[in-house]
Amino acid sequence: MTQKKFNTVSLIRKKRDGRELTSEEIQYLIRAYTDDEIPDYQISSFLMAAFLNGLNDTEAAALTESMLHSGIVVDLSETPGKKVDKHSTGGVGDKLSLILAPIVAACGVPVPMISGRGLGHTGGTLDKLESIPGFTVDVTLDRYKEILKKQNLVLVGQTEEIAPADKRIYALRDVTGTVESIPLIAGSIMSKKLAEGIDALVLDVKYGSGAFMKDKEQATKLAQTLVGIGEKFGKQTIAYLTNMEQPLGNAVGNWLEVKESIDCLNGGGPEDVMEITHLLAGTMIYLGEKADSIEEGIEKSRTAVDDGSAFQKWLDIVEEQGGDTEVVKNPDSYPKAEFIEEVKSQKTGFVTKMDAYAMGMVSVELGAGRRAKEDDVDPAAGFILHKKIGDSVKENETIATLHTNNKGTLTDAKQGMADAVIISDMKPPVGKQIAYKVDKNGVHNYNKG
Amino acid sequence: MTQKKFNTVSLIRKKRDGRELTSEEIQYLIRAYTDDEIPDYQISSFLMAAFLNGLNDTEAAALTESMLHSGIVVDLSETPGKKVDKHSTGGVGDKLSLILAPIVAACGVPVPMISGRGLGHTGGTLDKLESIPGFTVDVTLDRYKEILKKQNLVLVGQTEEIAPADKRIYALRDVTGTVESIPLIAGSIMSKKLAEGIDALVLDVKYGSGAFMKDKEQATKLAQTLVGIGEKFGKQTIAYLTNMEQPLGNAVGNWLEVKESIDCLNGGGPEDVMEITHLLAGTMIYLGEKADSIEEGIEKSRTAVDDGSAFQKWLDIVEEQGGDTEVVKNPDSYPKAEFIEEVKSQKTGFVTKMDAYAMGMVSVELGAGRRAKEDDVDPAAGFILHKKIGDSVKENETIATLHTNNKGTLTDAKQGMADAVIISDMKPPVGKQIAYKVDKNGVHNYNKG
Repeated sequence: MTQKKFNTVSLIRKKRDGRELTSEEIQYLIRAYTDDEIPDYQISSFLMAAFLNGLNDTEAAALTESMLHSGIVVDLSETPGKKVDKHSTGGVGDKLSLILAPIVAACGVPVPMISGRGLGHTGGTLDKLESIPGFTVDVTLDRYKEILKKQNLVLVGQTEEIAPADKRIYALRDVTGTVESIPLIAGSIMSKKLAEGIDALVLDVKYGSGAFMKDKEQATKLAQTLVGIGEKFGKQTIAYLTNMEQPLGNAVGNWLEVKESIDCLNGGGPEDVMEITHLLAGTMIYLGEKADSIEEGIEKSRTAVDDGSAFQKWLDIVEEQGGDTEVVKNPDSYPKAEFIEEVKSQKTGFVTKMDAYAMGMVSVELGAGRRAKEDDVDPAAGFILHKKIGDSVKENETIATLHTNNKGTLTDAKQGMADAVIISDMKPPVGKQIAYKVDKNGVHNYNKG
Repeated sequence: MTQKKFNTVSLIRKKRDGRELTSEEIQYLIRAYTDDEIPDYQISSFLMAAFLNGLNDTEAAALTESMLHSGIVVDLSETPGKKVDKHSTGGVGDKLSLILAPIVAACGVPVPMISGRGLGHTGGTLDKLESIPGFTVDVTLDRYKEILKKQNLVLVGQTEEIAPADKRIYALRDVTGTVESIPLIAGSIMSKKLAEGIDALVLDVKYGSGAFMKDKEQATKLAQTLVGIGEKFGKQTIAYLTNMEQPLGNAVGNWLEVKESIDCLNGGGPEDVMEITHLLAGTMIYLGEKADSIEEGIEKSRTAVDDGSAFQKWLDIVEEQGGDTEVVKNPDSYPKAEFIEEVKSQKTGFVTKMDAYAMGMVSVELGAGRRAKEDDVDPAAGFILHKKIGDSVKENETIATLHTNNKGTLTDAKQGMADAVIISDMKPPVGKQIAYKVDKNGVHNYNKG
């Protein structure tokens, strides 16, 4: 990376005035900030200018590269084969990583997965994994490589060595109102993913009330930016735009989602979860060169569930990372939350709408999520939905069951859940789960073929 | 002022998303920043959002009020009469304050003038005053009131008690690329002027290459914002848009400009300087209720020069503030710069253009100005123009005389001066010095009556 010096104020003014920064200029800003040569107040001013005036694809790629090279880029060449990971932009009840990672690994594609924690209305894979007694997600990079080599799979958290500039810039964005910017989000995601040592990447970009991007067009733009950066770095990248208007599956909450994932790996589980799981897993298997097409990958994904090899891989990785396999084999033995209460329907009709964001906040209320980064989560807290959009419901029938160890939260949580479900007389049209596929060739309407 | 608490990030996001902040919200941001409850990096992000999305008149007034009340608002009621000041947005060769302040005071209107130092291509009134041996501009607020009461005039620098929030925010804007914003500039100017204790204000808003606002439309918008804020605070405010395409008068440099001002007060001096001086002074005399119209004020201004009362007031204030009146009476006794060199014309024709910005930078080069706030200035350095736009010039005739005590600067300065003057065969049309008058009733074309 260049060590050329620039005038920081001139670079801020350039972006402020809507002009394009060179890659060298962006590299200077990130490198000098990471080295404490530029103070927070100049970078926050730059970030706001970038937020409002945008960064084009070349600038976003330069930002990604600078953050990527602020730390270690892991060399996974000890593990043979094309390493493929999946990243989701986050939603409510999104436990897909827990299901597809063992499926894909069982199909012979190495999956080096570094995940994050939940914040606000969305859950995080690390919190879900940690609800399994003994499961550890904090490992060194050497151990990360070792687990992958041995299991073809590793499920851990970000280490200090991975993209430290991103960590620092993300923390600054969080307190300066500059989070929801497509190029800044894309740079943050891709710098971490590229640092993992992957060869290809599948992205699940969610839109709707339970997603970070409420708007489908914005989410599509994010998917295009992510794919553009991935391809620029020579990594095959395919994204799907998926619907987050209602929670994914029936379970929301850390252990409750692990339990639902175990059902899925054993051939059960909700249909909406398995539709997206097989699509993403099939695409990963295709990118990992263990299938000649995505369709063949999807077939292999289904077989890995049917023949038990995916569940076996799951047991293997739980054991490898210190988790209790007994509770995974017998999920009902897991200690239940102290207070379990049902939310009943006030009327008869059809569920026409669910506010996934509000439901995510109900799960936070019950103890399953975090309002601030420092908060602890309760592994047993959350809720199970008994109805989803399109289902018929009778007056006084149970819509959801709430689980919590904090009795004081129940009144608000029940009200929040009841308010989040709209019941009407008319059966609503069935929405599509997957809207678009985005790859290097562009945006494709998924439902038209 | 309210002590209500707000979420800082929410306020940044509100402005980022183009929404209007309430006066309470703006007051919170400024008060909490001044009290060290909000860090620099959040205010810089807010300032960039305000820069790009703007602040409307209500927001600009709230910003002004918050900064005004961060310090002392001086009570000048001990001095009878309506106190009137003048503020210029800064230019090259702008010595008008030195001439009009004694004129207006001599006409019976108290002038409490707090000025700034020069930076970059523009000079500052304080540097000019300090070129007079012994003249002190650093006084306490008590002494400030005492001088005004005694002399009907005071010419000093900003004290720590005046608008400290503005001082801090200005310093942050300077290093975060958020200087050139109309509402932020207006808030900064007006908070300081309102804190002085004035009853009315005349503004000289300059446009053209030698001004901060190059563009006439932008300068007009600034004038409107300044007048709007002044009137909102119940102070009669009148602004003039004046041309800064070429330096004002012939002298540029601290003592050289004082010397030209003395000529003006003695009935001489360049015509362009006296045209604007009498207009601004006449308007101040009118606002100070010592004339029934601006025209009558202009007549009184001319009389004060002709009858010697303005020059006598100048001698009085120089003496009051510790300056050497002998050198003011005999300006040729002032020690000259060591190196004085002429810049000659390369061709015969008419001066059609002068780059006032470039000439301002030549004066900085020679030692008359500052590149950074900490720099010292040389009181004797600068230049005298022998030609202005529209003048005919012969090959090898002197265009300008440079003055410096730093011989090493002469080569570049001579080249810079020669490059800044365009000579062509055609006599250019005569430009207007004053474009618009802006008052509470709107923008008026000055040259159409």
